[in-house]
Amino acid sequence: MRTVCIVGVGMSKWGEVWRMSLRDLHTQAALNAVKAAGVDHLDSMYVGCMSSGLFVGQEHLASVLTDYMGMRGLAATRVESACASGGLAVRSAFIEIASGMSDIVMASGVEKMTDVDGDEATYALATAADQEYEVFHGATFPGLYAMMAVAHMEKYGTTRDMLSTVAVKNHNNGSMNPDAQYPFKISMEQVANSVMIADPLHILDCSPITDGAAAVILASEDVAKKLGKPYIKILGTGTGTDTIQLAQREDMTTIKAATIAAGKALDMAGKKIDDIQFAEVHDCFTIAEIMVVESIGKYVPGKAGEAFLAGESALDGAFPINSSGGLKSKGHPVGATGVAQMVEVYKQLTGQAEKGRQIPGAPKLAMTQNMGGSGGSSVVHVLEVA
Amino acid sequence: MRTVCIVGVGMSKWGEVWRMSLRDLHTQAALNAVKAAGVDHLDSMYVGCMSSGLFVGQEHLASVLTDYMGMRGLAATRVESACASGGLAVRSAFIEIASGMSDIVMASGVEKMTDVDGDEATYALATAADQEYEVFHGATFPGLYAMMAVAHMEKYGTTRDMLSTVAVKNHNNGSMNPDAQYPFKISMEQVANSVMIADPLHILDCSPITDGAAAVILASEDVAKKLGKPYIKILGTGTGTDTIQLAQREDMTTIKAATIAAGKALDMAGKKIDDIQFAEVHDCFTIAEIMVVESIGKYVPGKAGEAFLAGESALDGAFPINSSGGLKSKGHPVGATGVAQMVEVYKQLTGQAEKGRQIPGAPKLAMTQNMGGSGGSSVVHVLEVA
Repeated sequence: MRTVCIVGVGMSKWGEVWRMSLRDLHTQAALNAVKAAGVDHLDSMYVGCMSSGLFVGQEHLASVLTDYMGMRGLAATRVESACASGGLAVRSAFIEIASGMSDIVMASGVEKMTDVDGDEATYALATAADQEYEVFHGATFPGLYAMMAVAHMEKYGTTRDMLSTVAVKNHNNGSMNPDAQYPFKISMEQVANSVMIADPLHILDCSPITDGAAAVILASEDVAKKLGKPYIKILGTGTGTDTIQLAQREDMTTIKAATIAAGKALDMAGKKIDDIQFAEVHDCFTIAEIMVVESIGKYVPGKAGEAFLAGESALDGAFPINSSGGLKSKGHPVGATGVAQMVEVYKQLTGQAEKGRQIPGAPKLAMTQNMGGSGGSSVVHVLEVA
Repeated sequence: MRTVCIVGVGMSKWGEVWRMSLRDLHTQAALNAVKAAGVDHLDSMYVGCMSSGLFVGQEHLASVLTDYMGMRGLAATRVESACASGGLAVRSAFIEIASGMSDIVMASGVEKMTDVDGDEATYALATAADQEYEVFHGATFPGLYAMMAVAHMEKYGTTRDMLSTVAVKNHNNGSMNPDAQYPFKISMEQVANSVMIADPLHILDCSPITDGAAAVILASEDVAKKLGKPYIKILGTGTGTDTIQLAQREDMTTIKAATIAAGKALDMAGKKIDDIQFAEVHDCFTIAEIMVVESIGKYVPGKAGEAFLAGESALDGAFPINSSGGLKSKGHPVGATGVAQMVEVYKQLTGQAEKGRQIPGAPKLAMTQNMGGSGGSSVVHVLEVA
């Protein structure tokens, strides 16, 4: 298999972007990435999108999006695994270049979530859980993660402050990210006193509803060298699944799909978890960031919360997490999130992170972890600066 | 890139299958394929599905389907390009094996369409057209294909009998297919006198609404040889897009995405269209079969209808088309259709087609053509018996 690199990245505007449609958002991110990479064509593209059918009544994205990019005829595939759709798009593009079939492939992600009302958005998001055994009976995503949080607190003594510190740290990072939906700082008190959504999760434990797109251009290393710009290498990719139903899990306090995906990605990269210097992980809720870093093997189960309170996950900590602001502050257009994680890692590894967000010490090796639903699927990548 | 083979195939029950859910249908087809291939594991899977979100309120299929197959943890990706989703699943599985990343990958497709009422199904299917510029204004799929039929009739003198002969021939073939939803013969008179749906298309010009799934097991040639069963090789794969809007097309009487896809697949296979001995093509409406075989270069534009009337596309004709019964008689569970085309080609090339449906002369080389919506995307494969 050939070495595959990321040679350019692009974002659309993120937030409640009422004056732009799904196709507009995607086109903005895609053309920004093409311009940044300096490529004169694409061989194909993969777009991650969870539910354009329910959110905007549009399936068949391959056809719509290539047309609006001005690239009619281009080979294009939409991939979906709920909130892990973006990570899968990157993985699929990686495989196509690794195979030798293509040299330059775009991986993008998009979700347009604010064209429906709150009830409809809650229903659409809930289709990432088990419709027959969870959603039909009233489960929503805050409810599912609240149950995981209660189980984690009961088993390991995880505290309110441990949850709150995730939100405070991510908003601090996001306050320096010009692409963030909510680029402002919050305090521990504000999180704890914010409105309760599903006990023990307050609204400031939850990532928001977001319109947005992100895109990265992948290329063979031959092409990457010719382009003459900074690039990073994808050393490893891994994906795994688990039962979609919480009730069927072996353990509600761990994300087995993330364990599988991280194990595969690290094996492929020939690295160990402690080689990784920083990570973008899937903090759809504050408890998720804690469970994920334990599930990928960075912390012993039940120990991540203490480490977070001690500042290890901060920008200047031993293992910075979500320097972008994460889903919590940057926003969470579900199909785009996994691709936006790559955008942040590209910026950090090539020293292009804005303002005070650059991780000190010029780190060389990073991980992204993207997750579907309540952990029914996960996609992990290991990336190194060239 | 490594040679990739199809080593086993499986189907679920097709039709109005009210006692089975989407996950049940998919599991049935998947396990049938695994059993037929005789493999003891899968390295990953790709499932094509157009709109499980709108039809059954369930996205995140990777997680649900691997679990119900008894394969929790398996790497899994859903791909979507409307009615071409199944073809893309096969293409994605092909690329993963060709790259050397995996040895045994399942490509499957599924759609559960009868859990919603007719209006909801019409809306869900219409999301394969342009929501903003076509669907919002009232366009439905029979309406879009009717416009293409009128344009083709006007430009080339295509007749009612030419359309009818597609339906009659496909129902004749399907009457010998135990997996077909409508396994009975119809007459030219019945087509012409059936109820009008969108002038000039009568109901017997249209493929039906279907619940169903199909699966094929792809493997490297090393694995295929070890399994010791009949297998076929995928010599070429191609995919292409076009603008989703009919009004924006260069020509409404041709399917440019199919032209692009067929050209790429034939180039990769090192074959010419006239080398192909039979084909499964996307006859969602009778006019589609005519337009497709012209678009892939088998017939000069405007000449396919005459050839069909002369019997060339019949089982014993010079170029048999849709020996399975096609979408018209076999059924059209949209995400499954592209995979079911592979099932038929596998059976024909390995001499396992049921009853009197086997194409005479033991053909060695075949093509499948799968199409999204009104032709906004297309996936073509060239296959040869090993």
